[in-house]
Amino acid sequence: MSIERSKIRWNGWGWAAHKDTLAARDDLWTWLAEELGMPSLLATPAREIADIVLPAQCLHADTRAGLVAMLGPDRVRDDVYERAFHALGRSYHDLLRQRSGDLPVAPDAVLYPRGTDEVLALLAFAAEHDIAVVPYGGGTSVVGGVSAVSGSFHSVVTLDLSGMDRLIEVDAASRTATAEAGIYGPALEKALQAKGVTLGHHPQSFEFSTLGGWIAHRGAGQGSSRYGRAEDWLVGAKLATPRGLLETGGFPASAAGPQLNDIVPGSEGVFGIITEATFRVHAAPAANDYRGYLFRDFAGGAAAIRAAVQEDLPATMLRLSDAEETRFFRAYGALDNKPGASHRIETLYLQMRGFDEKPAALIAGFEGEAGTVEAGRRRFAAIAAAHGALPLGLRQGRRWQEGRFHGPYLRDPMMDRGVGVDTLETAASWSKLDTLYGAVRTALDKAMRETAPMPGAHGIVLCHISHSYPDGASLYFTYIFPRALGGEIAQWQAIKAAASDAIMANGGTISHHHGVGEDHLPWMAQEKGALGIEVLRAIKRTLDPKGILNPGKLIPQELPRP
Amino acid sequence: MSIERSKIRWNGWGWAAHKDTLAARDDLWTWLAEELGMPSLLATPAREIADIVLPAQCLHADTRAGLVAMLGPDRVRDDVYERAFHALGRSYHDLLRQRSGDLPVAPDAVLYPRGTDEVLALLAFAAEHDIAVVPYGGGTSVVGGVSAVSGSFHSVVTLDLSGMDRLIEVDAASRTATAEAGIYGPALEKALQAKGVTLGHHPQSFEFSTLGGWIAHRGAGQGSSRYGRAEDWLVGAKLATPRGLLETGGFPASAAGPQLNDIVPGSEGVFGIITEATFRVHAAPAANDYRGYLFRDFAGGAAAIRAAVQEDLPATMLRLSDAEETRFFRAYGALDNKPGASHRIETLYLQMRGFDEKPAALIAGFEGEAGTVEAGRRRFAAIAAAHGALPLGLRQGRRWQEGRFHGPYLRDPMMDRGVGVDTLETAASWSKLDTLYGAVRTALDKAMRETAPMPGAHGIVLCHISHSYPDGASLYFTYIFPRALGGEIAQWQAIKAAASDAIMANGGTISHHHGVGEDHLPWMAQEKGALGIEVLRAIKRTLDPKGILNPGKLIPQELPRP
Repeated sequence: MSIERSKIRWNGWGWAAHKDTLAARDDLWTWLAEELGMPSLLATPAREIADIVLPAQCLHADTRAGLVAMLGPDRVRDDVYERAFHALGRSYHDLLRQRSGDLPVAPDAVLYPRGTDEVLALLAFAAEHDIAVVPYGGGTSVVGGVSAVSGSFHSVVTLDLSGMDRLIEVDAASRTATAEAGIYGPALEKALQAKGVTLGHHPQSFEFSTLGGWIAHRGAGQGSSRYGRAEDWLVGAKLATPRGLLETGGFPASAAGPQLNDIVPGSEGVFGIITEATFRVHAAPAANDYRGYLFRDFAGGAAAIRAAVQEDLPATMLRLSDAEETRFFRAYGALDNKPGASHRIETLYLQMRGFDEKPAALIAGFEGEAGTVEAGRRRFAAIAAAHGALPLGLRQGRRWQEGRFHGPYLRDPMMDRGVGVDTLETAASWSKLDTLYGAVRTALDKAMRETAPMPGAHGIVLCHISHSYPDGASLYFTYIFPRALGGEIAQWQAIKAAASDAIMANGGTISHHHGVGEDHLPWMAQEKGALGIEVLRAIKRTLDPKGILNPGKLIPQELPRP
Repeated sequence: MSIERSKIRWNGWGWAAHKDTLAARDDLWTWLAEELGMPSLLATPAREIADIVLPAQCLHADTRAGLVAMLGPDRVRDDVYERAFHALGRSYHDLLRQRSGDLPVAPDAVLYPRGTDEVLALLAFAAEHDIAVVPYGGGTSVVGGVSAVSGSFHSVVTLDLSGMDRLIEVDAASRTATAEAGIYGPALEKALQAKGVTLGHHPQSFEFSTLGGWIAHRGAGQGSSRYGRAEDWLVGAKLATPRGLLETGGFPASAAGPQLNDIVPGSEGVFGIITEATFRVHAAPAANDYRGYLFRDFAGGAAAIRAAVQEDLPATMLRLSDAEETRFFRAYGALDNKPGASHRIETLYLQMRGFDEKPAALIAGFEGEAGTVEAGRRRFAAIAAAHGALPLGLRQGRRWQEGRFHGPYLRDPMMDRGVGVDTLETAASWSKLDTLYGAVRTALDKAMRETAPMPGAHGIVLCHISHSYPDGASLYFTYIFPRALGGEIAQWQAIKAAASDAIMANGGTISHHHGVGEDHLPWMAQEKGALGIEVLRAIKRTLDPKGILNPGKLIPQELPRP
């Protein structure tokens, strides 16, 4: 197994051994309280594992014995840590419940299969014994994708795929590779790069998420402009279902009807469990160049990105923060240095250059052959200049690269200090993006004010364009707010609903790369239409007639009246 | 309506007014007879329309009156020409039956709806009255995709969408456009280019096929390396079904579960009728450069293409003929000039340069901004040189561009002279391509010898790589053979089956861009697996519970025993 579960936090982000240095930074908390319109921030520590309450374990002794007979005792686990670790994902909503010590759900047992045949056998067993099955890769879902919900069944097991972590083959001629789905990001990249290739899929969760998880939730890495989204790089999959194995794809392109390979990305363990995948790889990049630019405003930066992607500029990443995100991280960064002098000089310089209060920072990344990288960088610099940007140089790019997977670690210390932080994301065509941006900002701001713990308190909305396409782009929102202690889940639900309704009303998709899980379920019928949901249900019924697979995710059971 | 049906041949390719100049070219037929091991070629003219036999018309008078009440008398047609025109597509198999004058199927009426609402109303009417419905765009299917089969119903109507031909909107900011599905290629490009953009989808059938048809059969234009396949450029669709309207897509990217937009391309009128589509467009290219190269052999050219696509060279088209196709068209072209001198000098020159008998011709096309085109062209020239190619210059490229839609016109005069000609295509990963190529060639050659009308007669197999991807490429086979007069359908079936079995046995897909229709149905269960076929059936049942839509295509009714 490439990762021991005990080395990862069960109720927070990342390595258990990670040292949080922020807790003791009083300057930070004073500043953040001020940002949120709060007089001060309270200590709100998480419960210890010894103090948590788990749901009663429902697995019949005979059933457990049957599972042990299949896998051996080491791969059927039901101690408190294993059950708590696999109860939920790692969303803000999940962390609220994990930290409160009151877990509403937990698997009755966690199973560690070692191959496609074992997964198929386990699914047949679970279908026969009416047990719900939740597939689990790295468990970093931020939309409730791995909640150990039993649905209409009396018990639920989680299939942890981390024991299925082999790189099976690299087909050098075809630039594809095949691996077991449970392999983690770093192990996969290490094995691929040893053969001179890369998948290049680097979501923020990269260190703690798996190949199968990336596909199941239809993810996009930070460098997806070059390396593609999961649905772009997936060539073929083995999908283990209660009805047997469905093998999809395997061709560079095909007109043999609708491609079943296309319904694997985004299937979220509801149609089947991805056990192996074949995917497109690239030559490991010989060069890379990440650097910063500062635009006069968000709209100017967005226009530059649009110009670049519409002329097929081969960028790896173009990431543009809005004015508020730029301001927030500049101010946050300034806390680290001697506050004052350099920050004031920077501000003065920007004013002289005609930048007002709304500058927007962009990181442009290029990877590949040295010549292509250099040509792309130069071309983007010209586009940025034409849109009035100031080049910030390599330092900003280096800083972003160093911290590219670090963001989620900031959430735990904030939650220790009465601060909530969540993210959500959407995408729309360029012609709708500006309206969508404004509507979601406004909805978040209003909902955070309305649910704030005291009058005058409010939240912060940060946004960036994380991924761009010739026809549109994604918007990634981070919202930070003072927790309404005691009513935090209702607070989160109100904020989430307000933003989601604004997304639906303004031509956005309910998710660009986080997926659906439990959290986006209420908006799926609106996004897909009643007939569309029926199509998804028909696929599900065919592959999983009893509905044992990942209950309560992706496909709504009730449809609104037409 | 953008095209009058009466101006198009009902039993051959293209404009009725097109002048065939080949019929009188005795030198051509003498040469071709020799190529096929035949002493001579017989005259085998097509029947006139006055002499054809159509199946009896089955539409009940009340039903017909109901349709007329909905559309008016002008848009419900059932004269002989309309019924014969819409009976079948334009495959070799279709032409055999059209030319023989014995049409096994024909629509009882041809309906010309004018919008999504009319299509929905007609589908509801047809479902209520148990009438099969065949959607029809340009009718150029070469796989039996529009055969007017009634299936288990007593009558069948064809919905001809050519009256739905409006460009609805160009969203300049998002570089997308929306059009009705029945618009023909030239009308669509004319309307788009008037607004400075292009879709760039140019299949060989471009002049006679429609937007909806391109999507329905999951097509690829000749320039798909730049402009993408139908599934790449389709942003969203309106799919009219007997259960109502399914609207799909509309986002640049989404992780809101499996995308229903992905099951529209390749759905072949079996799930619903595409009435409108939104698609990605490009700036009309400022420059283009098409030129020829000659490689020492097919493998060398394929290696150059692989190198180019794997370094993301922005080519529009890389089209490589194998040695036999190169030889055949060189010899055919030489008939046009004074035979002898120039051809002999060329051959001598090639021998001096170390080219043996197996040279393979490649056309490399680049479109876009002048700088990108020039850089791409130069880079490909370097790759070609590194693979031992001889540059042939712009003349070959110009000649290819001039004739790019002309190929299918050659089939009719061949069929007039006892010669059969058909094409088939597949795709596979690069590591399987060479074996697949050899196996299909061998299977075609063997089957054509075995079904030849006399001992010693045989066929010709030509092949080119028409589309390429980082992970693989397509193979496009043309096979020409002396017709076994009197047993021609069995002959065609034997050849087709031999090639298809070879494709399946060697890792190819049954179609890269022609689609499935009736002709590839027998191989679908093998390609998709029994469980995969069940998934397709479940989708179909949801959208078309009675199964009225395009019976007998795409989804096999019977599955082989597992």
